[in-house]
Amino acid sequence: MNTLFTNAKIMKTDHANHSFNIVEGSLAVEGNIIKHVGGVPADFKADKTIDCEGNLLMPGFKNAHTHTAMTFLRSFADDMPLQDWLFNQVFPREGQLVEDDIYWLDILGIMEYLTSGITSNFDMYFFPPKNAKASVDCGFRTVQTSGLNNFGGSVEIVEENYNIVNEMSDLTSFIIGFHAEYTTSKELMEGIAGLAQKYKSPCFMHNSETELEVKECIERWGKTPTELTDELGMYEYGGGGYHCVWMSDNDFEIFKKRGLYAVTNPGSNTKLASGIAPIKRYLDEGIKLAVGTDGPASNNCLDMFREMFLMTGLAKIKERDAACVPAEEVLYAATAGGAHCMGLPECDSIEEGKKADLIMIDLMQPNMQPENNTVKNIVYSGSKQNVALTMVDGKVLYERGKFDIGFDPKEIYTKANAIIGRMK
Amino acid sequence: MNTLFTNAKIMKTDHANHSFNIVEGSLAVEGNIIKHVGGVPADFKADKTIDCEGNLLMPGFKNAHTHTAMTFLRSFADDMPLQDWLFNQVFPREGQLVEDDIYWLDILGIMEYLTSGITSNFDMYFFPPKNAKASVDCGFRTVQTSGLNNFGGSVEIVEENYNIVNEMSDLTSFIIGFHAEYTTSKELMEGIAGLAQKYKSPCFMHNSETELEVKECIERWGKTPTELTDELGMYEYGGGGYHCVWMSDNDFEIFKKRGLYAVTNPGSNTKLASGIAPIKRYLDEGIKLAVGTDGPASNNCLDMFREMFLMTGLAKIKERDAACVPAEEVLYAATAGGAHCMGLPECDSIEEGKKADLIMIDLMQPNMQPENNTVKNIVYSGSKQNVALTMVDGKVLYERGKFDIGFDPKEIYTKANAIIGRMK
Repeated sequence: MNTLFTNAKIMKTDHANHSFNIVEGSLAVEGNIIKHVGGVPADFKADKTIDCEGNLLMPGFKNAHTHTAMTFLRSFADDMPLQDWLFNQVFPREGQLVEDDIYWLDILGIMEYLTSGITSNFDMYFFPPKNAKASVDCGFRTVQTSGLNNFGGSVEIVEENYNIVNEMSDLTSFIIGFHAEYTTSKELMEGIAGLAQKYKSPCFMHNSETELEVKECIERWGKTPTELTDELGMYEYGGGGYHCVWMSDNDFEIFKKRGLYAVTNPGSNTKLASGIAPIKRYLDEGIKLAVGTDGPASNNCLDMFREMFLMTGLAKIKERDAACVPAEEVLYAATAGGAHCMGLPECDSIEEGKKADLIMIDLMQPNMQPENNTVKNIVYSGSKQNVALTMVDGKVLYERGKFDIGFDPKEIYTKANAIIGRMK
Repeated sequence: MNTLFTNAKIMKTDHANHSFNIVEGSLAVEGNIIKHVGGVPADFKADKTIDCEGNLLMPGFKNAHTHTAMTFLRSFADDMPLQDWLFNQVFPREGQLVEDDIYWLDILGIMEYLTSGITSNFDMYFFPPKNAKASVDCGFRTVQTSGLNNFGGSVEIVEENYNIVNEMSDLTSFIIGFHAEYTTSKELMEGIAGLAQKYKSPCFMHNSETELEVKECIERWGKTPTELTDELGMYEYGGGGYHCVWMSDNDFEIFKKRGLYAVTNPGSNTKLASGIAPIKRYLDEGIKLAVGTDGPASNNCLDMFREMFLMTGLAKIKERDAACVPAEEVLYAATAGGAHCMGLPECDSIEEGKKADLIMIDLMQPNMQPENNTVKNIVYSGSKQNVALTMVDGKVLYERGKFDIGFDPKEIYTKANAIIGRMK
């Protein structure tokens, strides 16, 4: 299937400067690969031609941390103290999930990703092969990691899932990881470090999300979560942490030395009152950044436009500096930064030879006008309403409100309501 | 023109508890008035019937503080220090605006309001009668106030505009106001207080937006902006302040005593690094709240979904309490609170006899599923993408991406680009 986009504005990524420039012209996709950018030879044979009418083609957003299938708990129990929410509302219901539930709940999340221009996710949840299967069936790209902790699973199962998901499809991959220091024994963490080394895999976990988590880790081990996991040998092949809100000076040094990614989740950090991540310092120190929505139970939506505004907005409040964390850095983290973090360098930008994970932004909407600065318009004013089309791996999965993922949306909504209905 | 909505979920407002309940059925609009809610007599004569297909009718959002026509400066100069932005970028270009510009730039803002389910605005900008005319021509409801300050205008012009706009149309009204203490002489403020008393009008201004503003006011007058303006007699008939971020204990007392509204603008306060308003304390002390987007140069979008998430999310971060400022209080402030603040009690909720300023929320979108809690879904997960229809004064002005305001959107975009193009 070859697709020709005509009359487009096309966003190209300047990786050296974390900036973007926009050219006008056509773009051709051959199979799942971007074949021509800007000018397309007259003899290019397109199965489908899409007239962009002057709208913008740009790289898809990469959701670099989420728990997709938690859709069933969206708006189920909000405005509660964190511990009460987690222990009395979330955990008891997660315990009732069966594998088949995960499949349908994951598809609901994938649908929402597509409406937000997200073309791949870095997902941590129960039954990774089931989540990966849901992605493949929809045509969506996913990177799975393990949420191993003391309450379920084993290092052996993580290894098994690593191999199953990495071999399942070109759309799926698996990176070693576990839940967090505060939920996981040293023995399990050592096992995870061993796996990361055996498979030369990066390693990820929830890291320094709350002040309490860091305090208790220091009480237990005399070290921060970053120090402890580094000493356990987690990061020989890179990786990083989700959240990374409460970081010590030495944590910053370790992130720099190991080339780790700080995956920021500002929506969740806001709603759960966790705090504001030190984004300006990450940028100042050259630490690599990616952006995630976290799961739909804690956010409650899967919307990269919200995350981008919050990533810079919260930094501006924290630093009391309206000039810090410019829009270009945010957009770079939400696209190329995420792709690199997730081991998807072939999906990081619109370039000949890269995979066709791209979106069309409707500029002919009042919130994108006038066109003073398209990058700033997207980061500061963009919304799901502007996502006109989402293409993953060369296939249009979403276009102006319509899904092409092989499922009827109403069937998915019915399934999701039935699953949570069973638990009320 | 009579409109019948069938197969609807309908959100009713419980004013006593600041909560909502949802009934199912039909809703009939006769002219500009909501005539029947829930059940509609069989002999109701509809000119137009809209099948809601199970989607939600709810009161329109009230944007209780904005500078609509600043659309021309959206994304023009962001990520800059506040003073540099204001004095070197904003003011010199505002000085080049002529009345006709305001008309077109205001319409661009109105279009964006409609995409966000906003049915009226409380607007402060140059040439209030011109902004009011733009609203009337689109069929949009507006409450204008004055932005009087030392750099332009006079108390006489404010009085003239008060009368012109109040008499212009049922869609327009004017409430006394001025820009802010830090831009306005005592003589002008005394004149404004005189007008508020003469016309028994509430009075509004930018109040305690930044820490510096309050500090300098205290240096000048030995009083906070709230104390000073109260002593000048501004609030004999109520009113309130925009922003209200940096408030003293005595300021809270004055707000309570006078029944003033704190109009919060969290998007702008975030992007301009102004700080986080004490929303929890306002609620705890029973101070009335409304929500505004501020202008599109500082936000940069006109999106009440963003404001609602930020209103509670920033409060949660500030208080380090995930349970504070529940979604219901936020939605109340964004609908009925705003209506009361703006002198529009007849537009505050869906009730027989109220004016038909209402919107339809598309629940058949992945971000609104499952339907665990519709209010929390709207506040925490809602987006412009969910606004299926916006009705103002009984007329559908926006429906699923299409505007019915008497202007071609592309013409408005061309005008806006030409205006800023002239100033570059």
